[in-house]
Amino acid sequence: MRKYDIIIVGGSAAGIPAAITARRHYPSKTIALIRKEKQVLIPCGIPYIFGTVDSTDNNLISDKVLEQNKIDLIIDEAKQIDCTSKLVIISRDEKISYDKLVLATGSTPLNLPIPGIDKQNVFVVEKDVSYLNKMLQRLNNAKNVVVLGGGFIGVEFADELRKRGLNVSIVEMLSHCLMLAFDESFCQEAEEILRRNGVDILADVRLDKILGDDKVNQIQLSDGRVVDADIVLIGIGVRPNIALAESAGIEIRNDGIVVDAHMQTSDENVFACGDCTIKKSFFTGKPTNLKLASIATMESRVAGANLFEIKRKQEGVIGVFSTIVDNTVFAVAGLGEKQACALDYNVVVGEVEAPNRHPGKMPGATNIKLKLVFNKSNGEILGGTARGSDSVGEMINTISACIQKKMTANDIAQFQLGTHPAVTASPIAYQLVNAAELAIRKMSQ
Amino acid sequence: MRKYDIIIVGGSAAGIPAAITARRHYPSKTIALIRKEKQVLIPCGIPYIFGTVDSTDNNLISDKVLEQNKIDLIIDEAKQIDCTSKLVIISRDEKISYDKLVLATGSTPLNLPIPGIDKQNVFVVEKDVSYLNKMLQRLNNAKNVVVLGGGFIGVEFADELRKRGLNVSIVEMLSHCLMLAFDESFCQEAEEILRRNGVDILADVRLDKILGDDKVNQIQLSDGRVVDADIVLIGIGVRPNIALAESAGIEIRNDGIVVDAHMQTSDENVFACGDCTIKKSFFTGKPTNLKLASIATMESRVAGANLFEIKRKQEGVIGVFSTIVDNTVFAVAGLGEKQACALDYNVVVGEVEAPNRHPGKMPGATNIKLKLVFNKSNGEILGGTARGSDSVGEMINTISACIQKKMTANDIAQFQLGTHPAVTASPIAYQLVNAAELAIRKMSQ
Repeated sequence: MRKYDIIIVGGSAAGIPAAITARRHYPSKTIALIRKEKQVLIPCGIPYIFGTVDSTDNNLISDKVLEQNKIDLIIDEAKQIDCTSKLVIISRDEKISYDKLVLATGSTPLNLPIPGIDKQNVFVVEKDVSYLNKMLQRLNNAKNVVVLGGGFIGVEFADELRKRGLNVSIVEMLSHCLMLAFDESFCQEAEEILRRNGVDILADVRLDKILGDDKVNQIQLSDGRVVDADIVLIGIGVRPNIALAESAGIEIRNDGIVVDAHMQTSDENVFACGDCTIKKSFFTGKPTNLKLASIATMESRVAGANLFEIKRKQEGVIGVFSTIVDNTVFAVAGLGEKQACALDYNVVVGEVEAPNRHPGKMPGATNIKLKLVFNKSNGEILGGTARGSDSVGEMINTISACIQKKMTANDIAQFQLGTHPAVTASPIAYQLVNAAELAIRKMSQ
Repeated sequence: MRKYDIIIVGGSAAGIPAAITARRHYPSKTIALIRKEKQVLIPCGIPYIFGTVDSTDNNLISDKVLEQNKIDLIIDEAKQIDCTSKLVIISRDEKISYDKLVLATGSTPLNLPIPGIDKQNVFVVEKDVSYLNKMLQRLNNAKNVVVLGGGFIGVEFADELRKRGLNVSIVEMLSHCLMLAFDESFCQEAEEILRRNGVDILADVRLDKILGDDKVNQIQLSDGRVVDADIVLIGIGVRPNIALAESAGIEIRNDGIVVDAHMQTSDENVFACGDCTIKKSFFTGKPTNLKLASIATMESRVAGANLFEIKRKQEGVIGVFSTIVDNTVFAVAGLGEKQACALDYNVVVGEVEAPNRHPGKMPGATNIKLKLVFNKSNGEILGGTARGSDSVGEMINTISACIQKKMTANDIAQFQLGTHPAVTASPIAYQLVNAAELAIRKMSQ
């Protein structure tokens, strides 16, 4: 029987860093990673397969990092776990023994009971090379694509598909795209860019029916409208893969694996991380639905470090992410104004817009808009939302740091920043400190 | 007699934000800003006048922000201060009364007693429009330029001047350019880019003599070499402008105005900020020579807020800045390894290099190198240095946040980050967390 000190089940954004972190913290342990996929796609890169990078081959995670870290790769399906005997059972009933186990089983795209959903050319965002290759191939003969779901996956797909010259429509049941993540003004700006590039946004409406014979040829909306569609892509979210944990008797709640702050499950030798676990909010301590690759990697770095000795604790997820529409980055860390208000915080907002260069005559100059949300009762930052050029992708992590360390508006107003004419706002106009100052002024009013 | 509640002397990176901050915190006060320059140059943008933006006009700070904040602009020289009667005396002996005064008098370029320094076509980095226009004009007839000083000002000038097609040499007395700011490997990378673009770097050598009749035509180095030069630019640092404060009896030490953590001088009604003050290090609490526009703005936001009520305290300067050589950004926050060792810290370093995109096939993909320095005794971060694409300009501010809040390597290893294929590393490869993990591994060895 094969024996490992550590077995990781799952080889994506949670499994890989869990394995690497385990190796870094426990250099003498034997580690195996079991996954069923021959090749692993970069999850966040999947929309870009359909435009910018143009093939699944260009969006793979190399297995080299596993080799370099002396992690045995077992390409097989973990069919069962025996927590008492500490065994993972794979195909042909082979048993592999572990001392510590990490479940990083991820999630599966949600499907809906829509009539016609089984027709040809209806796709979900499956993290599977051959499935996506099939979709790529079908797109070659397509003209009209309907994307169901205007979340950031749906928006990124729509933006990439229109770059292929396709007629793209987004169907979103809320009144704007990206509404679960962003305050309305940011959603409207993103929609404006999509529309300017020819994407049709059908909001405040549901998809009722997928029409056609074998293949989809139209969709019908809840308001009666009918839209031509050669391809339908469903991007409305995911559900955690919990069957393996559940059948092993590991505690499940709200459709997710229960973990504590150390990422330990109800079985002390089994840890879990990534999309398959339930998460609690950094702000409220209550469960949150956030599922992001960046959260998976953070959790996996806690799990991997804690396997044989508790070293790390995670205090709840903040939720930090970026998306791009055409060339404009939209990013958020923590709570938007709307979300903070919904949680009954007494909210103060500071919002600024300033160039990302100084002087404004420097090449590449464009405005960055930044909105910070503070808790009026103690001045602490609750969140930040930014829109602008590429560097917003890193700026949002500065805001995440401020949130993680519960900085107040006053702390941020005297932030020790670095600037340069070619790559940031001027130190006088720097967005972060000015947004904090504007919020402070409102707090005293 | 004109009377103001608040007078600011100086109108650049310290004076302007001091005035704006005062306005934000004390909306009903009358404020005047006195400066002698008709037009104010963006200080950090000065090198770019000589290449990228190509004129002083394209590098001015607009006075609109003063108008918008109801700050009276007095273009005149503050010749004297009477702290007892609380008066500023300007030209024609006009006295203007203040309740609170902010000295933001800045600094003056250092000159050296080099034989021949008074010859025509020897320039310093004077923040003066007509002076720089004269230099611009003289450059039109120049072929060979020698830049004395390979600090970041000198390097930026050299890089811009070579873009004009000039033969540029840098004379640096240390063994590498940028050595006061960066660890050696980063200096070498910057030098390699400069050399590849035709800049001649003459290191480990002094400028002994400026040769020529009225005009410079050559320079002579301490090793006897002679280099042709139509223009010499001296960029070796600045000295604080303290004469006004000194003559008013305000305490001066080490050639700078003494301020406390509230930016208050020895006179309780007089605050000071920016290049004219002495600064203490965030790390050691001891005086530091750091002089940056970004430090000036931070200090001015402390001074401006504290004028009538102490609201802010500044805990010493970290030193965060970025520079760019051709298209590569070099940035540092806090201490480099060499500096930390010189201060007798027990240092652990984590260094990584990873793409700024994921997958690496995304457009604009290039590597970002990041080196973090930690204090082995308590795990706290002491500094970070990064090299790479534009977004490094914002990444360095995330590191600054980590330093300001004394995050440990373990905190940073479980940093809650946001990523996106088009604008950052993958969450698996994210430079910040991986550099921290590598340092942790070394700490336990």
